[in-house]
Amino acid sequence: MDILELIAELKEKNDSKIVLLVADGLGGLPDPATGKTELETAATPNLDRLAKRGVCGLMTPIAPGITPGSGPGHLAMFGYDPLKYVIGRGVLEATGVGFEVGPKDVAVRCNFCTLDAEGRIIDRRAGRISTEESAPLAISLRQIQIPGVEIFVEPVREHRFVVIFRGDGLGANVSDTDPQRTGVPPLDPVPNDYESQRTADVAKRFLAQAREILAGHPKANGLTMRGFSARPNLPSYEYVYGLRAAAIAVYPMYKGLARLVGMTIIGNPSNLGEEIDLLESVWNDYDFFFVHFKYTDSRGEDGNFAAKVQMIEEFDRIIPRVEALRPTVLIVTGDHSTPAALRSHSWHPVPVLLVADSCRPDACQSFGETECLRGGLGQFPAVYLMSLAMAHAGRLGKYGA
Amino acid sequence: MDILELIAELKEKNDSKIVLLVADGLGGLPDPATGKTELETAATPNLDRLAKRGVCGLMTPIAPGITPGSGPGHLAMFGYDPLKYVIGRGVLEATGVGFEVGPKDVAVRCNFCTLDAEGRIIDRRAGRISTEESAPLAISLRQIQIPGVEIFVEPVREHRFVVIFRGDGLGANVSDTDPQRTGVPPLDPVPNDYESQRTADVAKRFLAQAREILAGHPKANGLTMRGFSARPNLPSYEYVYGLRAAAIAVYPMYKGLARLVGMTIIGNPSNLGEEIDLLESVWNDYDFFFVHFKYTDSRGEDGNFAAKVQMIEEFDRIIPRVEALRPTVLIVTGDHSTPAALRSHSWHPVPVLLVADSCRPDACQSFGETECLRGGLGQFPAVYLMSLAMAHAGRLGKYGA
Repeated sequence: MDILELIAELKEKNDSKIVLLVADGLGGLPDPATGKTELETAATPNLDRLAKRGVCGLMTPIAPGITPGSGPGHLAMFGYDPLKYVIGRGVLEATGVGFEVGPKDVAVRCNFCTLDAEGRIIDRRAGRISTEESAPLAISLRQIQIPGVEIFVEPVREHRFVVIFRGDGLGANVSDTDPQRTGVPPLDPVPNDYESQRTADVAKRFLAQAREILAGHPKANGLTMRGFSARPNLPSYEYVYGLRAAAIAVYPMYKGLARLVGMTIIGNPSNLGEEIDLLESVWNDYDFFFVHFKYTDSRGEDGNFAAKVQMIEEFDRIIPRVEALRPTVLIVTGDHSTPAALRSHSWHPVPVLLVADSCRPDACQSFGETECLRGGLGQFPAVYLMSLAMAHAGRLGKYGA
Repeated sequence: MDILELIAELKEKNDSKIVLLVADGLGGLPDPATGKTELETAATPNLDRLAKRGVCGLMTPIAPGITPGSGPGHLAMFGYDPLKYVIGRGVLEATGVGFEVGPKDVAVRCNFCTLDAEGRIIDRRAGRISTEESAPLAISLRQIQIPGVEIFVEPVREHRFVVIFRGDGLGANVSDTDPQRTGVPPLDPVPNDYESQRTADVAKRFLAQAREILAGHPKANGLTMRGFSARPNLPSYEYVYGLRAAAIAVYPMYKGLARLVGMTIIGNPSNLGEEIDLLESVWNDYDFFFVHFKYTDSRGEDGNFAAKVQMIEEFDRIIPRVEALRPTVLIVTGDHSTPAALRSHSWHPVPVLLVADSCRPDACQSFGETECLRGGLGQFPAVYLMSLAMAHAGRLGKYGA
């Protein structure tokens, strides 16, 4: 039995409150000079106090050695096996720019490319065209009309944009048109099942009209399509956990991921302080609160150890405001590691801290990767974070008599 | 491949002896005044000595955050994935009162209830009728006769009793008749597959005759039926492990669970001392011995920390008698945690201790939750306890060449 089905069966309701504070890319690697990671280097008096009071551990988002993207990283933390529940590339791209993918939609990641006079690809990324140049070009494609289909075109960044086809009978099983090499023309969109024939046809007509609009542009006179995908069918937080769930995030990607599991997106904060303002303002209206802090990941991706340390300290400073709300269960973790040393997401297990009255405390004296190694939660798959949260909130009945 | 199938393939026989000593609900939570759990508070010189000699760890019975009932808790310890091998509610109830459910049986949990003149339920638990009053009433239902079906009625406690229908062609897929609310009559038993039509029909006839017998009783003039279930199809200890297995327990529930996996129930002890007497007396006749001690769980459920500590100390005192038998593998653990602080079963991992000559010892100096956290067994799913036991008993061959 799937853990989600088990939880859906055992869930109970009460007036507990669960807070999941996510510092994106929290886990790190040590500065060779000190032997301490970003989290261990940061002065985090509040997190350290919580670590003493609660129980710590390390989470593996997907599987040992597997580095998660933001989509799978969050799905896992939310309790959804990211190898079973897959978010298509097109849907993730649309989600990332704040487009709400609906049940009749097929989302497609598109790249501008440069074609020669014979229609062969010369540059698969249109000479790394700037966002300033490509965004108006993407928007110009909104003039394309295909009867019976609503079309949305959203710029993303540089050569990337996303197209959403909305209509009846649009399957998402269509092959990529990007041949993954130059010197050949883009492929035709080929349907891989009966349900996707109309989608492939719509895509062909879109491509034909786009070629006319783009003709003559020196760099972006063509485009390729990848990752045709439909909204994933994720059982909702309400169904699985019986939780009225609120999501508070600055970036569209995280709002979108939360929306896919049925969380309600709260407000439009522009920084962590405003996020906590919102948390306070809706405290009485929800049972579960996902609060996302982006900049730990951003500074890790920059490779800036000191700046990531600062972001962790900024994150630590808001902890007392969250504690003041007296959540039944307070969890602090990340969706994956982003060590400044690697300048990218990584597979390293993510430190996690859970505070509740029902914790069996461990010997951890501070919040950091090394301390977490001897934490009472041990090392565990991230998909169990929510069953632990539910248990400590008193929201799970006994399995079997 | 299922771990049971793997073990069944790799199992070898020798003259080793494995003892599994189970202190029910062993795991706990700390007394806030001392920071020590029940097990850590108890004076356990014998268990501590074993912890130094053997290897310790923590077991998760079902999955992180999931609290097991006795059935799934024991199945997991016995090596059977409790999410795959499910014991129906009716069978568990029958097992709990010592009724041996056979292959042609359907067991049903029944509640006495109070009906009004129109047959609508007024009280789903018959005014919490006492056992003294309800037991003779349940026994009076033994007069019910249905041709071709043998019927057993066993009192349980208060409004609860269990009915077993024995006969050919009785499927167990019948819906509950308890509408889960008052103001409406009980539902009819509805078959959910072809094989269960006869069972539903038998149940209807039973209900009609019962109504006549109960008519006029001021509280228990009706009944509802739940958890229709057949004996689960569990591969036996003999088949999986090649072990002649003996079970020694005071309470019918644990004898019943052991019987479901093919263990032989030894004697009828009434306390731990008598259980060890029996263990000694059958030592030469079996390869595996499951010894169950109930009162650690009972005192935990009472919320009595000090009394649970005493029970653990009582349990510790019999250890030398078990050691004197020189088992090849001696395991001490629980089927789940029952912290006095929670007055109930809980999801917290269960301390486990394994002693054998082939142990790779760890640094654990005593037997307790905090020490077990740094134990050599780590934190592991309870279903692997038996493969570890078999390995240390020299009873498992190599997998692959």
